[in-house]
Amino acid sequence: MGKRKEKITSNIGWSTPDKICVRGLDLPNEILGHMNLGDLAFLQLTGRKATPEESRVFNAIIITLVEHGITPSALAARMTYMGAPESLQAAVAAGLCGLGTVFVGSMEGASKMLYEALPQDKLGTGVDLDALAVETVEKFRARKAIVPGLGHPVHKPVDPRTPRLFQIAAENGKSGEYVALIQKIQGVAEAKSGKMLPINATGAIGAICCEFGFPWKIVRGFGVMARAIGLVGHILEESENPISYELWQRAEQEILETSGPGAK
Amino acid sequence: MGKRKEKITSNIGWSTPDKICVRGLDLPNEILGHMNLGDLAFLQLTGRKATPEESRVFNAIIITLVEHGITPSALAARMTYMGAPESLQAAVAAGLCGLGTVFVGSMEGASKMLYEALPQDKLGTGVDLDALAVETVEKFRARKAIVPGLGHPVHKPVDPRTPRLFQIAAENGKSGEYVALIQKIQGVAEAKSGKMLPINATGAIGAICCEFGFPWKIVRGFGVMARAIGLVGHILEESENPISYELWQRAEQEILETSGPGAK
Amino acid sequence: MGKRKEKITSNIGWSTPDKICVRGLDLPNEILGHMNLGDLAFLQLTGRKATPEESRVFNAIIITLVEHGITPSALAARMTYMGAPESLQAAVAAGLCGLGTVFVGSMEGASKMLYEALPQDKLGTGVDLDALAVETVEKFRARKAIVPGLGHPVHKPVDPRTPRLFQIAAENGKSGEYVALIQKIQGVAEAKSGKMLPINATGAIGAICCEFGFPWKIVRGFGVMARAIGLVGHILEESENPISYELWQRAEQEILETSGPGAK
Amino acid sequence: MGKRKEKITSNIGWSTPDKICVRGLDLPNEILGHMNLGDLAFLQLTGRKATPEESRVFNAIIITLVEHGITPSALAARMTYMGAPESLQAAVAAGLCGLGTVFVGSMEGASKMLYEALPQDKLGTGVDLDALAVETVEKFRARKAIVPGLGHPVHKPVDPRTPRLFQIAAENGKSGEYVALIQKIQGVAEAKSGKMLPINATGAIGAICCEFGFPWKIVRGFGVMARAIGLVGHILEESENPISYELWQRAEQEILETSGPGAK
Repeated sequence: MGKRKEKITSNIGWSTPDKICVRGLDLPNEILGHMNLGDLAFLQLTGRKATPEESRVFNAIIITLVEHGITPSALAARMTYMGAPESLQAAVAAGLCGLGTVFVGSMEGASKMLYEALPQDKLGTGVDLDALAVETVEKFRARKAIVPGLGHPVHKPVDPRTPRLFQIAAENGKSGEYVALIQKIQGVAEAKSGKMLPINATGAIGAICCEFGFPWKIVRGFGVMARAIGLVGHILEESENPISYELWQRAEQEILETSGPGAK
Repeated sequence: MGKRKEKITSNIGWSTPDKICVRGLDLPNEILGHMNLGDLAFLQLTGRKATPEESRVFNAIIITLVEHGITPSALAARMTYMGAPESLQAAVAAGLCGLGTVFVGSMEGASKMLYEALPQDKLGTGVDLDALAVETVEKFRARKAIVPGLGHPVHKPVDPRTPRLFQIAAENGKSGEYVALIQKIQGVAEAKSGKMLPINATGAIGAICCEFGFPWKIVRGFGVMARAIGLVGHILEESENPISYELWQRAEQEILETSGPGAK
Repeated sequence: MGKRKEKITSNIGWSTPDKICVRGLDLPNEILGHMNLGDLAFLQLTGRKATPEESRVFNAIIITLVEHGITPSALAARMTYMGAPESLQAAVAAGLCGLGTVFVGSMEGASKMLYEALPQDKLGTGVDLDALAVETVEKFRARKAIVPGLGHPVHKPVDPRTPRLFQIAAENGKSGEYVALIQKIQGVAEAKSGKMLPINATGAIGAICCEFGFPWKIVRGFGVMARAIGLVGHILEESENPISYELWQRAEQEILETSGPGAK
Repeated sequence: MGKRKEKITSNIGWSTPDKICVRGLDLPNEILGHMNLGDLAFLQLTGRKATPEESRVFNAIIITLVEHGITPSALAARMTYMGAPESLQAAVAAGLCGLGTVFVGSMEGASKMLYEALPQDKLGTGVDLDALAVETVEKFRARKAIVPGLGHPVHKPVDPRTPRLFQIAAENGKSGEYVALIQKIQGVAEAKSGKMLPINATGAIGAICCEFGFPWKIVRGFGVMARAIGLVGHILEESENPISYELWQRAEQEILETSGPGAK
């Protein structure tokens, strides 16, 4: 939780009558017109400006997380909007509430796994990544857990986002030992399990986040802020071409049939 | 609500084993590495690619809405995170729930006011904007309502974001009759009320959104998605430098003193 | 919003090391074991103890609002739980977010309509309820609005909850001019429209809330707190007998067919 | 997550034009007027009617969880209401989002600990509770974890709710080996730590929930539904006697002083 303190502080920003400052930069003059939204997100979350290379990779990561189709999260947002169309913000909030361990967890799980296998202070010390990969996969297999960031129900044998994300990372100096390690982990995991286990988008992003050195805890936040953008899109579509009412009616009717007074 | 329909549809995107498509574009090959986050948001919400000029203005608009300091919304997110640090997404959701009529309303209010005064099919027909401004202000004054988008508790006599946003809009072909109209409305409102009523950031954004032709209903969504980014930043800071515990303890203690057994 | 004040206060309760007080009553000794949950809700919301008669009616009202089947709200909660099973509270929160103007609004709408037609200071002054009913229905018909609290898509010609709620109200001294007025309004509305317009449960509750003298604004809160109980039940069932995954898969599949690459 | 299934089912309830059924009971005729809200909650969550003894204990448990003063959850709800007063439901939702591991966790933690120490199939087999208590405390001390359900920042040396809850449980046949075990655990924990570690309300409730045989996962749900009632009360008070605005202004001002342009 926390402790009592004399004074509360915050380093995010401040404003006075004629000045507005975000992370040490003058909002109107140093940010507006000079940065894109992804760069501002980078600034807000890390406290520093992204380099042009970081900007390209970071924008690609966040963009990948914006839109994932008719997800449970999108359905929750749309259902909420049906009941409270006056509160678009609450519909987005409802959609975000479901971005927990099941859907966004694999991304932070991948980052955590990679940092645990290869702590940042071991980078560049010639660690044997092949051995690390075997060890890591064994550890997950021993406790019958799935390796985070591998496998996809639809995108097989390759998740089409992954090679592209790795390419963008490589072109911008963000493809190092963590990206190499997750690729070796994938190879070992496929060999040991005999199944197709592509590195999925969350695995690729988890690895690239390690290349940035982002704390693994921050990683879920990337997914949350990206999906907020996606959900606004879904709610706007729902306002013009609603699907929730139909889905609701079908569910209610089916349950009346299977579980109502006439059910056997 | 809605009506029964044979089949549900969605035009946002789809995916097959080897392809992922968002708004008609191939995500890995046509979006990743080619767009920044603001452009993707534009695509997700409007269904089309922004021009370079639109990109500059749109990114500036959304960025302006990301971070507004220790707002009630940020406080709600931080308080929520204190109780459920395992659910970052729910803390963001809690913060978004408060972006209702009081704080984001003025933005859509400004757009709505401008569209009502000057419907899109009257653009370029030589409408007398001065007369319109007087008429509009009179209407609000008659029902003792404040004019949306004008006035700010701190940023006086000028909201420093406004001239910069108008400049970026002008440099990119997005400064037309709506921007002119809100400026005239401000002049009339200040004259009639005798108060300093700067066009605030939400007023400027509301007017520029009209220049884009965005439906006024979409405008709240811009604020919601932007603030999600800001809130992730606040929660990360709270995880490192918490303020909620101290604010909670102070509130509890003060209420015990003013309203507890010893209070008179 | 609010104004600056020297000191914040709260009259809900306080606690010291050996005492816990809610609304002026000692929680362990005067509440626990002496009240049921409905009575405590009455105490928390009104600041006073319910009489035995009030207790019977109030408990019946709130109970009526707990469980309404597979509603959009229940679906949103279940979808959220699928993604974040570690955050039951966030799934309930997501479900509550949709209790807005469309689904709970009719309850407060009915109360508001009745108070506007018959202000509390006119009670017992012999107002002509028949005339009031005609006038009220005309007002809604004139602006082509539906009369809140009337009509139901399923429960026709009678909503089975309504006569029972009115009976409980009558047996406990809570059936007066407001209940009479909504019944007359129903008669007029059915006659004028030629449609079956039963007083639905939210209409009955809205009228009974007026008999209590509850401010109409409080009425939505009754629905929200009741539904929280119902949603916990839905989430528990979802944890044992999930339906969200199937509903999600069907929706995704259907949209792929209607709107994906193979769609015409 | 789940698996594909032919048909979705639900055992909570159903309705036809003239009948509404909740958990196998006819809502208007068998529930309304016959049950209080706590009993209906018991029915909704367990699928069966509470006995009169169970009703007394269960109502007391839930009531204990309704109102805990100016908590972070109440503050989040009030802050949210300030920004979106038109969405009372979203303010309650925001407040619920924070009922995670820190504040409600200890209740389910206590239940889980007791079930792990004494599985239900060992009840009545003469297990040595003293030995179990020592073993349990040692286990927590070994991993430097706090024993869930013990200790309170304010209520020392006794949490006044605990003896009363245990008394109500004892009077109604719900005080057995689990209540005895947590009391022994407390004795051992105080002796080993040398600190005052009263069984707090969540510990008492966790133990009594075990006496009922409730799965430990259900226990958080009790806290969530109870607090929804409490939060509606806080929001109503906020609407009449707001504190959020003042707390916000103070926080903003303090951060401007400590972290703004003039800070050293």
